[in-house]
Amino acid sequence: MTRSISILGATGSIGTSTLDLIRRNGDEWRVVALTANCNVAELAALAKEFRAEVAVVADESCLADLRAALDGSGIGAAGGRTALCEAASRPVDLTVAAIVGCAGLGPVMAAIEQGGTIALANKEALVSAGEILKASVEKHGATLLPTDSEHNAIFQCLAGNRIEDVRRVILTASGGPFRTLNAEQLATVTREQALKHPNWDMGAKITIDSATMFNKGLELIEAHHLFPVGLENIEIVVHPQSIIHSMVEYRDGSILAQLGPSDMRVPIASCLAWPQRMETPMAPLDLPAIGRLDFEAPNEQVFPATRLCREAIGEGGAAPAVLNAANEVAVAAFLDRKIPFSRIPVLVERVLSNGELPEAPRTLDEVLRVDEGARHRANELLELA
Amino acid sequence: MTRSISILGATGSIGTSTLDLIRRNGDEWRVVALTANCNVAELAALAKEFRAEVAVVADESCLADLRAALDGSGIGAAGGRTALCEAASRPVDLTVAAIVGCAGLGPVMAAIEQGGTIALANKEALVSAGEILKASVEKHGATLLPTDSEHNAIFQCLAGNRIEDVRRVILTASGGPFRTLNAEQLATVTREQALKHPNWDMGAKITIDSATMFNKGLELIEAHHLFPVGLENIEIVVHPQSIIHSMVEYRDGSILAQLGPSDMRVPIASCLAWPQRMETPMAPLDLPAIGRLDFEAPNEQVFPATRLCREAIGEGGAAPAVLNAANEVAVAAFLDRKIPFSRIPVLVERVLSNGELPEAPRTLDEVLRVDEGARHRANELLELA
Repeated sequence: MTRSISILGATGSIGTSTLDLIRRNGDEWRVVALTANCNVAELAALAKEFRAEVAVVADESCLADLRAALDGSGIGAAGGRTALCEAASRPVDLTVAAIVGCAGLGPVMAAIEQGGTIALANKEALVSAGEILKASVEKHGATLLPTDSEHNAIFQCLAGNRIEDVRRVILTASGGPFRTLNAEQLATVTREQALKHPNWDMGAKITIDSATMFNKGLELIEAHHLFPVGLENIEIVVHPQSIIHSMVEYRDGSILAQLGPSDMRVPIASCLAWPQRMETPMAPLDLPAIGRLDFEAPNEQVFPATRLCREAIGEGGAAPAVLNAANEVAVAAFLDRKIPFSRIPVLVERVLSNGELPEAPRTLDEVLRVDEGARHRANELLELA
Repeated sequence: MTRSISILGATGSIGTSTLDLIRRNGDEWRVVALTANCNVAELAALAKEFRAEVAVVADESCLADLRAALDGSGIGAAGGRTALCEAASRPVDLTVAAIVGCAGLGPVMAAIEQGGTIALANKEALVSAGEILKASVEKHGATLLPTDSEHNAIFQCLAGNRIEDVRRVILTASGGPFRTLNAEQLATVTREQALKHPNWDMGAKITIDSATMFNKGLELIEAHHLFPVGLENIEIVVHPQSIIHSMVEYRDGSILAQLGPSDMRVPIASCLAWPQRMETPMAPLDLPAIGRLDFEAPNEQVFPATRLCREAIGEGGAAPAVLNAANEVAVAAFLDRKIPFSRIPVLVERVLSNGELPEAPRTLDEVLRVDEGARHRANELLELA
């Protein structure tokens, strides 16, 4: 049975991994819309290869190039934010929402409003606009399939079970490259050291988030929205090998865990084939060769990020969006060598605690305004320092 | 909603664990039949406590005592194999089949013929009469819930998934107390050393089976019958901590694992509440305190039991029943200090390979005759040695 799919963010890491899987199972998919920010050459090539109905660049200034690249192909070309949301709202069996950052909020919402199934890889959507998104999912009868390896693991561990039977969700964390350092050692780590992640090959922002543990904190916020088991029942356990991607403990004492290679094609395949399974080119996991899996408690004294995220959820309203924006500014400042590594959580905490938080956003526009305001405040604090 | 339950083997380890859980959730269960071999005092006490409809002793010579113990209680008393099967065939929502050994075959079959749900804890039923049982399950539309911790783990990891999406079933094994010994060291182990299991507190027979790895081999045979993924797709991985009770790998590369404490009340609770969950008195698993989970490949040079079991499944017909009977004789001989530890698999292999195997049994009576014949042959070989 052929199913239709749109991929928002087709030229990024999640988008290309998705298309790799579709390439291997081509007969089963009809590609409707592919979008990118402004990577015209790759977007046009993918649109032609997969015979997409339409290709869209978010950056309208790239539209002329896209039109030229697709000339004579019969594939529609469009550009700009409105065109992006229009493409996202075309009815399909599955939308892969993989646009990075707050730019992805509008298109995700447009896809949700179609009431379809959305493989959600955009962290900001749930972190900054969790309540708004969830309300829309409920209103339109949409289905969210979490694509992050951790949330996808939890989703898999919940299959065939009732959420009310869950005692605890256990989010695993690699602990990042600085897991074994103390506060003093952490103060002197360099940009280059921070950009080396032990288990995953990812972009710079998320690699730094992984080193500060903000990545895990943001995942905690996402998990809180995706899996309504109560914040106090979501725990983080450090597991340096990242083989177990997360776990669910039930009230009878059983824990289900999802394990797999550190390759995003595994959770993506789980979303593409859900509720069935599809072939991927993964070699079977060789546990005797891996030898051992380790576990330790997270150290929130040295890595306060997860505590800050937990507090932001507790605070509710605008706090998670403010935290997310402040963290983005802080990470950019660290990558620009403007602040040392250990200042990242300090800046975030200061933005959250200095002055009153804005009111809880009720629309995506309000989320974007909270986001902008928090960025502005973070930059102010950076300049004061 | 009150559900009805019968427990075949109520005074054994599985039976008392089941009743412990029912005691904690008493309102939800109505106990129909409780059976024991000849432990009259405990059986009568349990029957009174749980207001059972009927109590049955397998050993008819104990019936007079049971009648006396239940006098005036209004609880029916019965004895002997026919009474046992009659009790097992009373319609209930769930039958817990926990009679040890081939004595449990008849009652299990009687329960299956009611087309109900059976929590199966009797290894011999699947090992010696797997084909016959499976045919009857299919014919009568019964449901088997595996109660062994490993098979229950696999069953849990399959929830919400299709068996045709499974790439591999991974049966974990503690490796037993002699995991790190070589063949020479193994030859000199004593009865006392063999009776110490690192993770589970069990009966003598199963503890020795765990030390020889025959326990894992018999579980392999059970898994083969319960989960039709192909024998070559069932693998054994040694995992000394026994925290992961088994795993299922899907064709997309995802592995689901079930973890939990070494307490049979967890898998039993999973059967009692299936497809939901119930409370158990288990403390949450503290993975940071456990620290690490190890994995290694099994060593079939030193521990040939799993190879013998795999070969017996491949051979099919009477071979698994012969292997099981030969192993029981060999273990008894070891416990009686008649043969050294390392002779156990040698004797089993000899019974399997000396002369022609009997024809494939088609009825339970034929299974019992195969069993008797193999015991006889094993004892002959013991006396020759």
